[in-house]
Amino acid sequence: MHINKQHYRTIWPDPRCQYVEIIDQTQLPFHLRILRLTTVSEMVNAIKTMQVRGAPLIGVSAAYGLALATLVDVSNVHLNNAAETLIASRPTAVNLAWAVNRMLLLLLAEVPAKRNFLAWRLAANIADEDVEQNQAIGQHGLALIKQVACVKQFEQDSLIHVLTHCNAGWLATVDYGTALSPIYAAYDAGLPIHVWVDETRPRNQGASLTAWELLQHGVPHTVISDNAGGHLMQQGQVDMVIVGADRVAANGDVCNKIGTYLKALAAVNNQIPFYAAVPSPTIDWALENGQQITIENRAGDEVAYIQGQLADGQIARVRVMPVESEAANPAFDVSPAALITAIITERGIFQPTELHQLQYG
Amino acid sequence: MHINKQHYRTIWPDPRCQYVEIIDQTQLPFHLRILRLTTVSEMVNAIKTMQVRGAPLIGVSAAYGLALATLVDVSNVHLNNAAETLIASRPTAVNLAWAVNRMLLLLLAEVPAKRNFLAWRLAANIADEDVEQNQAIGQHGLALIKQVACVKQFEQDSLIHVLTHCNAGWLATVDYGTALSPIYAAYDAGLPIHVWVDETRPRNQGASLTAWELLQHGVPHTVISDNAGGHLMQQGQVDMVIVGADRVAANGDVCNKIGTYLKALAAVNNQIPFYAAVPSPTIDWALENGQQITIENRAGDEVAYIQGQLADGQIARVRVMPVESEAANPAFDVSPAALITAIITERGIFQPTELHQLQYG
Repeated sequence: MHINKQHYRTIWPDPRCQYVEIIDQTQLPFHLRILRLTTVSEMVNAIKTMQVRGAPLIGVSAAYGLALATLVDVSNVHLNNAAETLIASRPTAVNLAWAVNRMLLLLLAEVPAKRNFLAWRLAANIADEDVEQNQAIGQHGLALIKQVACVKQFEQDSLIHVLTHCNAGWLATVDYGTALSPIYAAYDAGLPIHVWVDETRPRNQGASLTAWELLQHGVPHTVISDNAGGHLMQQGQVDMVIVGADRVAANGDVCNKIGTYLKALAAVNNQIPFYAAVPSPTIDWALENGQQITIENRAGDEVAYIQGQLADGQIARVRVMPVESEAANPAFDVSPAALITAIITERGIFQPTELHQLQYG
Repeated sequence: MHINKQHYRTIWPDPRCQYVEIIDQTQLPFHLRILRLTTVSEMVNAIKTMQVRGAPLIGVSAAYGLALATLVDVSNVHLNNAAETLIASRPTAVNLAWAVNRMLLLLLAEVPAKRNFLAWRLAANIADEDVEQNQAIGQHGLALIKQVACVKQFEQDSLIHVLTHCNAGWLATVDYGTALSPIYAAYDAGLPIHVWVDETRPRNQGASLTAWELLQHGVPHTVISDNAGGHLMQQGQVDMVIVGADRVAANGDVCNKIGTYLKALAAVNNQIPFYAAVPSPTIDWALENGQQITIENRAGDEVAYIQGQLADGQIARVRVMPVESEAANPAFDVSPAALITAIITERGIFQPTELHQLQYG
């Protein structure tokens, strides 16, 4: 998508395959800083500190991490170790393990001399696949938004209000995004769309990333505290909810950023459709249901401190609770399939009970 | 309750009735600053800027505001004007109008010469009444907590986990608090209690005030993002929810800090009891149901900026979203009576359908 009218992806390789560049998402929305990564450990660090984040982008980043590993040593031992380190960097994101394992399998099957070149090509393929998948998600989701537009066109408030949680926009992917891809498609198609952006504590990905990327693209939006969405639904000010997901179980349970479950409950309570938009590799067929997902507990300091911009323009973090108090920080929750209207994938729209159709073929 | 082992109320009059002192709650949890207020407009400002906040404390503050008015002029016109200004300072809090109107009625019925003395006495009565009500709420709520303790005593995790939203502690009242009064009573009775403290965006009253006052009293607690409570309930880590309320409708609909509704939904979805603890004047019999309540929309800047403490100890605010993005900030929501297990009052515990028993008598 565009930043200041110039097209960017969130990650791109050096044309001579010596390094990878990323947008440092910890500096948004205040500074656009490009980081150059040259080693596996730099990539692991970027994933851990969430300079890159979002399940699809983490997958592609890890793939490029494995490509970086081939710059040093293409032996089985080295690549296996690199893959293991990359997979361990964020335990919840299924795309990460999926991308790394898929690439590792193909690399180990190739003679060592060809592994370096192959690694960079495979990573680029995974990146391009992500972009294509997201465009397809956008088109399928657009059909749902058009249905709402059709119903609302004669109402006093004909704006289509979509609520989203966290950032499942182009910044969470290589381009286009998952949950936001239908929104960009609708905006580009000229539909009157407005996005309620959950700020998404504790890391504020909504306020800092979703708001920023919608702003760059020109999509009307309003940031709200995570607490406000239920009230807005009660007031008839939300037409649909679209979120991304870090993992979807075979039964349609959706594991996504902490707080998603509360919005799913409120959507059902107010008869508002609730969609998760994901590329199909996000569906983990090995998981019967979401209760089998290990939820990542992140540092309590993410709750205790908030990063933002001071009046003088400096980025700083402030403590928002007593120094002596503890904080807990479960990073994801599971929205049971019964609360999910449908899952939007690159291969179409599926109710949770229909999801198994995607498994083979 | 205690601060550094010294007893404090949140508001107290000068013994010679020349001014009122308050704890400036905008400086907590980092600085304990006592403010001296000498005029109605200083009191209105303290209410508007939330140096005093919490429905019961706002009521008492406004009562003392009217007492301050009598220092200048005890005429009907002046007192009526002062009452009007005070009532307009926070539109949602029913206690405010209740306290001011009750006092005004009695003042206007008295001869001017006696109004000054009477005003200070009435305000003190309202403050003392609040303390007594809250102690009674604590004892009724304690019975509910004891029931949970009885069931849990043989479980592996015998800690009683109570989730609360916003601050309905002693800082929201004159002393003891509403939602936290049963918790203090349980702690003082030696029950093993632990509180999940919703940080309560956008103003973070949970992280800054509830955590601070629990800490001062020694009650075990953990701060969480507002997004986390649903997940904790799914995981069986919440035994009961107790919140305060700014207003309760005659049918038992509960108007409280934005986000309460989401927790009520999650509690019902996980078969966890959900209680609102309120002094009975919080029940507005003129309201058939919660939909008739006008929800205060506060400035978007409360969402856009977060106040906290920098590493050097200074209090500062940081911006957490793009400068060009808009924010919306509805301050309260309504949890429908169907989601409320019971309402704990100073006169006992009532299911929403039984609430009418409180109206007369």
